[in-house]
Amino acid sequence: MTEDTRFGLDRKVRLLGPLPLDSGAELAPVDIAYETYGTLNADASNAILICHALTGDQYVASKHPLTGKDGWWIRMVGPGKPVDTERHFVICANVIGSCLGSSGPATVNPATDRPWGMDFPVLTIGDMVRAQAMLLDHLGIRRLHAVVGGSMGGMQAVSWAALFPERVKSAVIIASAARHSAQNIAFHEVGRQAIMADPRWRGGDYYADDDPPSSGLAVARMAAHITYLSEAGLTEKFGRRLQDRDAKTFGFDADFQVESYLRHQGISFVDRFDANSYLYITRAMDYFDLAEAHGGALANAFSGSKTRFCLISFDTDWLYPTSESRAIVHALNAAGAEVSFMELSSPFGHDSFLLENPEMNRIVDGFLKAGEGR
Amino acid sequence: MTEDTRFGLDRKVRLLGPLPLDSGAELAPVDIAYETYGTLNADASNAILICHALTGDQYVASKHPLTGKDGWWIRMVGPGKPVDTERHFVICANVIGSCLGSSGPATVNPATDRPWGMDFPVLTIGDMVRAQAMLLDHLGIRRLHAVVGGSMGGMQAVSWAALFPERVKSAVIIASAARHSAQNIAFHEVGRQAIMADPRWRGGDYYADDDPPSSGLAVARMAAHITYLSEAGLTEKFGRRLQDRDAKTFGFDADFQVESYLRHQGISFVDRFDANSYLYITRAMDYFDLAEAHGGALANAFSGSKTRFCLISFDTDWLYPTSESRAIVHALNAAGAEVSFMELSSPFGHDSFLLENPEMNRIVDGFLKAGEGR
Repeated sequence: MTEDTRFGLDRKVRLLGPLPLDSGAELAPVDIAYETYGTLNADASNAILICHALTGDQYVASKHPLTGKDGWWIRMVGPGKPVDTERHFVICANVIGSCLGSSGPATVNPATDRPWGMDFPVLTIGDMVRAQAMLLDHLGIRRLHAVVGGSMGGMQAVSWAALFPERVKSAVIIASAARHSAQNIAFHEVGRQAIMADPRWRGGDYYADDDPPSSGLAVARMAAHITYLSEAGLTEKFGRRLQDRDAKTFGFDADFQVESYLRHQGISFVDRFDANSYLYITRAMDYFDLAEAHGGALANAFSGSKTRFCLISFDTDWLYPTSESRAIVHALNAAGAEVSFMELSSPFGHDSFLLENPEMNRIVDGFLKAGEGR
Repeated sequence: MTEDTRFGLDRKVRLLGPLPLDSGAELAPVDIAYETYGTLNADASNAILICHALTGDQYVASKHPLTGKDGWWIRMVGPGKPVDTERHFVICANVIGSCLGSSGPATVNPATDRPWGMDFPVLTIGDMVRAQAMLLDHLGIRRLHAVVGGSMGGMQAVSWAALFPERVKSAVIIASAARHSAQNIAFHEVGRQAIMADPRWRGGDYYADDDPPSSGLAVARMAAHITYLSEAGLTEKFGRRLQDRDAKTFGFDADFQVESYLRHQGISFVDRFDANSYLYITRAMDYFDLAEAHGGALANAFSGSKTRFCLISFDTDWLYPTSESRAIVHALNAAGAEVSFMELSSPFGHDSFLLENPEMNRIVDGFLKAGEGR
């Protein structure tokens, strides 16, 4: 099994497809960049799919090749962690539309031999999930022990359970929602307008020279970043403290720590992310409304579901507040599905799911272990 | 009195100053564009100063010359309104740093005979208030019956009471705060970065041709506008409803009503506001921390104050939430000042103070009338 070139770090596969998309278009071929950790057992029953968030990637538990930073969820995934790579076979794939190796606006359009740019088809969360299902077919995995995700990853996890109920034994949905609210859409629209207002965006056709719309993308990231933190968290972390100075400068430098932090978030983001991918993925999230395809009743998305669900929200998350998780729980209850739900306390807002949180880890660990005995 | 050219609509005065600024710089001359409504009584005891918000202006109760729209607070100011122009002499002045006629980055720097641009001195809320005090001297008004403001206008009103306690009989502070929080600063910084990222900003030196950084300013306005509304208000007003179409277009047009609304807010704003003024006024707000100048104890700002205070907050305002008003009330209580405080219920977030709200009007009306008997 370990000789199988499909398994391991830094993998990439070209699936011929075509992948039919929610828009009516088709995508072919479908490139998927992914990583696997641990060993698939003989009956392929120990696979866990990790779904990443808007600006996440497949490097869930290994160093990011561009930033050199640790994987984005090493607190959750690894030897002895809740998603235990000694017990589980873990898969994490870059979503289509993104820019870390999977098909997206920066990859080559076979019809033109040039980067897709804005000719890349608009995607949905469902399309991302169907591409992942193609990957599982390729890997020989019929049914997932679990699908786990936070934020947009949670949207994929809940969509997995709705689209492929027979393929998902358990689903863990953290700090997420079953639809994007008007305020969610509004923040994303600001980010998209910031990118498109950058003259270097050039209608998305900026790949030929090395001059992408970094300024617009940095502003988009800064605006989004505020939504990832709570007001209380920002106050605790920065308050009105000044940055490396004793007094206000009465100018427009980053006098305050929070300004300096935000500027850094914006500037460092553009080195690892493609502006067009940001447009496409935010659009997919804004289009997300799981109830819509089921006559407006979210419960219908889960009728007869045998999947076990675990939902976690954070009390200071105002991007996907507890009420959004609770709406999913109510729908699951109405559908008669098995569900456990916990709101956790954390000062760090939406970002809490990425941070050290022993209680979150304990819940996920217990939920996954309870599922193994069945 | 009615022949006095100092009084009436669409006034402008050049005060020689110099006005000493908190930064240590001086401003001279100080141009102030303002309007007055009603008649100043014989002992000049019926004057009410209205202070406007970040993007507000002196046209509180008359048509805006650029947009043709009604004054921004005709629900509060006018004949028979709480600020009753038949009973009160009402003054509203464009704050310095703004762009509707008062000295600001778009006005001429006498040292160069060219627009100030970024050579205009950085201002504080206190500087704005001291400029208004110069205007009151010019108008022959020693003491205000009341100073009234919402949002940044409330910051000026509370600063008036702190800086000139003998000149303020009553202060009405609505949907405001005594300092800018880390989150407040963060949102403003995003707006400033959006403006400065626009290549047409050119270091603020864009007045010579008719090509201002409109794209950046529009993005800044869009981001700010989200903070003016509540999540619930956005859901009630727009939800996920589509704009003039039956289905999603799978493109990047404004499919959703909330996108279309935000884009309109951004685009229409740039016709009436100067980008540099946006930089300067947001900076003044971020610098605002009334406690700071009083050893960190807000109560010290009001010691021995004889001013009557009325504070109003709105339960869905997350820009300047009730907790910020309550902090002012606690400080006023600690200082032994006379204060009434009410949190009102409204679905419309921070913007509530500008909208029809009979309860707000009733409270302000009662408060002002109670003050007249004294």
